[in-house]
Amino acid sequence: MREALAYARRYRARFVDELKSFVRFPSVSAEPAHRNDVRACAEWLAKHLRAIGMPRVALLETKGAPVVFAASRQRPGRQTLLIYGHYDVVPAAGAATAWRTPPFDPQIRGSNLYGRGVCDDKGQMFIHVKALESYLRNGGPPVNVKCIFEGEEEVGSPHLSSFIRRHARALRANAAVISDTKMLGPGRPAISYSQRGVLGVEIEVSGPDAELHAGNFGGAIHNPAQVLCEIVAGLHDSRGRCIIPGFYDSVRKWSTSERSYMRRTGPRDEEIVSQAQRGGAWGERGFSQYERTTIRPAVTINGITSGHQGTGVKAVIPPRAVAKIGLRLVPDQDPAEIAGLLREHIARVTPPTVRAAVRVLSQARPALVDRNEPAMHAATLAYEKGFGARPIFIRSGGTIPVVDMFRRELGIPTVLMGFALPSDRIHAANEKFHLPDFFKGIETSTRFMAALA
Amino acid sequence: MREALAYARRYRARFVDELKSFVRFPSVSAEPAHRNDVRACAEWLAKHLRAIGMPRVALLETKGAPVVFAASRQRPGRQTLLIYGHYDVVPAAGAATAWRTPPFDPQIRGSNLYGRGVCDDKGQMFIHVKALESYLRNGGPPVNVKCIFEGEEEVGSPHLSSFIRRHARALRANAAVISDTKMLGPGRPAISYSQRGVLGVEIEVSGPDAELHAGNFGGAIHNPAQVLCEIVAGLHDSRGRCIIPGFYDSVRKWSTSERSYMRRTGPRDEEIVSQAQRGGAWGERGFSQYERTTIRPAVTINGITSGHQGTGVKAVIPPRAVAKIGLRLVPDQDPAEIAGLLREHIARVTPPTVRAAVRVLSQARPALVDRNEPAMHAATLAYEKGFGARPIFIRSGGTIPVVDMFRRELGIPTVLMGFALPSDRIHAANEKFHLPDFFKGIETSTRFMAALA
Repeated sequence: MREALAYARRYRARFVDELKSFVRFPSVSAEPAHRNDVRACAEWLAKHLRAIGMPRVALLETKGAPVVFAASRQRPGRQTLLIYGHYDVVPAAGAATAWRTPPFDPQIRGSNLYGRGVCDDKGQMFIHVKALESYLRNGGPPVNVKCIFEGEEEVGSPHLSSFIRRHARALRANAAVISDTKMLGPGRPAISYSQRGVLGVEIEVSGPDAELHAGNFGGAIHNPAQVLCEIVAGLHDSRGRCIIPGFYDSVRKWSTSERSYMRRTGPRDEEIVSQAQRGGAWGERGFSQYERTTIRPAVTINGITSGHQGTGVKAVIPPRAVAKIGLRLVPDQDPAEIAGLLREHIARVTPPTVRAAVRVLSQARPALVDRNEPAMHAATLAYEKGFGARPIFIRSGGTIPVVDMFRRELGIPTVLMGFALPSDRIHAANEKFHLPDFFKGIETSTRFMAALA
Repeated sequence: MREALAYARRYRARFVDELKSFVRFPSVSAEPAHRNDVRACAEWLAKHLRAIGMPRVALLETKGAPVVFAASRQRPGRQTLLIYGHYDVVPAAGAATAWRTPPFDPQIRGSNLYGRGVCDDKGQMFIHVKALESYLRNGGPPVNVKCIFEGEEEVGSPHLSSFIRRHARALRANAAVISDTKMLGPGRPAISYSQRGVLGVEIEVSGPDAELHAGNFGGAIHNPAQVLCEIVAGLHDSRGRCIIPGFYDSVRKWSTSERSYMRRTGPRDEEIVSQAQRGGAWGERGFSQYERTTIRPAVTINGITSGHQGTGVKAVIPPRAVAKIGLRLVPDQDPAEIAGLLREHIARVTPPTVRAAVRVLSQARPALVDRNEPAMHAATLAYEKGFGARPIFIRSGGTIPVVDMFRRELGIPTVLMGFALPSDRIHAANEKFHLPDFFKGIETSTRFMAALA
C-alpha cells in the first residue's frame, strides 16, 4: 500500500491530464446526437484500463451504450470488490451561455477543474481507476477487483438491470463501491446509505391538430398549454404534498430514533438552502429540508414546453403542450405502481376537450444500505486516513439505480464513498471538481482496498 | 370601370405569379433574424407600385420596419380612399414539419395557392394593388387613392400610431379599406365591423440562479416552472372567466337587440368549433362561441417554456420559466389599464420564494365601425356584384390595431372587406388562399372604388 500511495502522489499532474482527456468526450446519454461520443468515450476508457495494466478489459454491449468491464487477476480466497462508475454525463446545452469556459474543454481555475462530468461522475470514478493503477504498478491490489463503468446512468440506466442479470456470475463480489455522491463540505467526508428512486415521465396534452389563430379562437377553444398548467398546478396541495391519490400509501414511516439520528448527523435547513443558489425553501410541511430531500418523495417539473418559444409575439393557441416531470421516490414506493397511480390521476383530471398521454422515460427503485456492513467500516477507516476525518453517514436525495440492482441481483451491499463538494454544481453550468479532493480520494480508495482485504 | 374589370380578367395568371414573388420574402416581423427580409419585401413592394403606374411611391422609415406609401394623382373634389395592408407575416418555424410545401416557396395545389402570408395579408392586400393597376392602365381610378402597407402588423404595429400622427396630413382621406379578415364561407362575403384589442405579455418566474439537481433539491426548493403553472392555472375560474380583479369592469354590455342581431347573422357554435381542427369548445359560461370570440375578452397562452426541452431526461429544477400570454380585449377595455391590473394580480399571487416579472410585448385597442357609414354601403354594393352575394356584417375576434388608429388620428371609418376563407389556415401551417376569391376580390375592389366615387 505504501508504494501505491507514493506512486499516486508522484503522478498527480499526469492523473489530472488524463482526467481532462476523459472529460473532453461529450458523452451525453440523453441526446441521440451524441451516441457516437458516448461510444468513443467508452473506447477511450477501455484502452486506458488496458494501459494501466488491467489484465481483462472488454466493452460489453447492451441495447444502449456499452458497459466497460475490467478485472484484475482474481486470486481465490481473497475478498472481491466491484467498482461501479458512469462515463456518461447530463447535457450542457440548456445552460451553455452560463459556462465561463466550454463544458467539454476542461480547464483549471484556482484549485478546481471545470467541465461537464468532471465531478459527476468522470472525476469521481477516475479516483478508483487511479488507485487501481497505483496498485497495479506496485505488485497488484490487495483484493480482487472488478470494474463496470456504464454509459446510461443519467438517463436512468435502462439496460443495466438486464446486463447485471446476464453477467451475474462474472460480477460476483463481496461488496461494491461507487463514488457519485457528495461530502457535507470541504474536509467533511460522507457515506451515503440511502438514495431516492425516480420515475421520469412526460405528460403531453393535445388539443387542435394545428396552431389556431388566438384572435379568432381565443376564449372559445380549450388551450392545451392552459390545461397542462392546470394539471401541473394540481399535482400539489397548498401544504406542499403531492395530490395523486395513493402516492404516500407505501412511504415508509421512520422511527423517532432514526429521525433524530438524521437531525444530529445531517445538514441543517439553512445549509441546504444556501447551496440552492438563491432558490427559495419550499416543500411538504412537517419535515426538515434534509428529510424533504431524502426520506420524503418529491414531484419536480424538469421542463415544460408549448407553442411559441422565440422572441416577440406569435398569437396562437398551441396544438399541444409537454411537461417533463421527475418523481423522486422513497422506500417502499415502487416506480411501476406510482406510474399507474399517476396515469389514473391524469386520466381523471383531464377535461374531455383535450387528450392527455403519460409516457414513462425512466425508472429506478429507492435503495438503502445497512450502516453496519463490514465494507462500511473499511470505508470509514479509509476516510479517516485519507481525509483525516471520520465520515458521516448521510442520506442522499438523488438516485443511483445500480445500488438497488446490486442488492437484488448480486446480493451485495454498496458503499457510496462520495468525493463531491456541495459547491461542485453537478448537473448545472460550471460544474467543477476540487482537485485536492481528487488526490485525497485516490489515497482513500487505496486505503479502502487495503482495509477490505 | 368596364375596361379595368376586363384588364384584370386578362392578366389573372400574371397577377398570381406576382403574388408568388411577393410571398417568397420571409418577411417575419417577430424574428430579428428576418429584419433584412422584411426590408427587402418592402423594397420589392415599392418597386412594384411604381411599376404599375403609381405616380408617388416612397419607403417611409419608422423605428422598426418601413411603411410603403403610395398615392395616385389627387384630384380636388373627389373622394379619397386610404388602402391599408401589411406585408409582414407570422413565423412559420414552429410548425415547419407540418408544411406540405415550404412556407416561403408558394405553390398552387388545386385552386389554392399555399404559403406563409399568401392570405394574411399579402394576398388580400394585393387584391387592391391589382384593382388599382387595372384602373391605372385604363385612365386612372375614380377616387383619389392613398396606400400604406406596414411591416409590423403581426407584432402589434408598435410604430404605426406615431407614424400616422406624424403623417396625418398626407394620409387625409374619407374612408379606409383593409382586407385582412374572413368571409363566413365560400361565396359568403362578410364585412367585419368590430375587432378585439390585444395585450401581449410575457410572464417570467425566476428562482435559483442556476439549474439545480432535482435529486438533491427536489421537494425542498420552490420550482419556478411549478409556480408559473400555478400562476397560469390561476388566471381562470372553473366557469371559464378570467380571475384578474377588475378585468371585466369596463367590458361593454350589449343590448338584447345587438346580441340577437349577432345570433341571426353570425356563425353558429358548431361552425366555429368545426373550424378549430379538433380543438374542443371551451370558454366563459353564458355566451355563444361567436360571442366568446368577439364581444368577450379572452386570455390565451401562446407559449410556455422552462427547463429541459429536448428528448429524454434531464433531472433539474429549472432556474426560470416564461409564459407568453395574449389577452384579447373588447370595448371599453384599455390595454394599459389591463396591463396594470395584470401586474398587480401577478405581484399578489407570486409566492415570496420566487421572483416574477411581467413584460408588455404588444398592445392595441379594440375597434368598432358604424354599420351605416356610406363607405359600408359602397362595399355592400361592390360585394353584391363581385361575389354575387350580399355581405354579412360580422364581428372579428382578431386585432387590427390600425382601425382604432384611423378613427383616433384621422377621424375616418375603416371598411374591413375580408376575402379569406375560414379554411385558409392563417397563422397555421399550410396557409392558403383560394384563387377564385383572389380574382373575385379584385373585381370587388374595382367596383368598390367606383361605388365610392
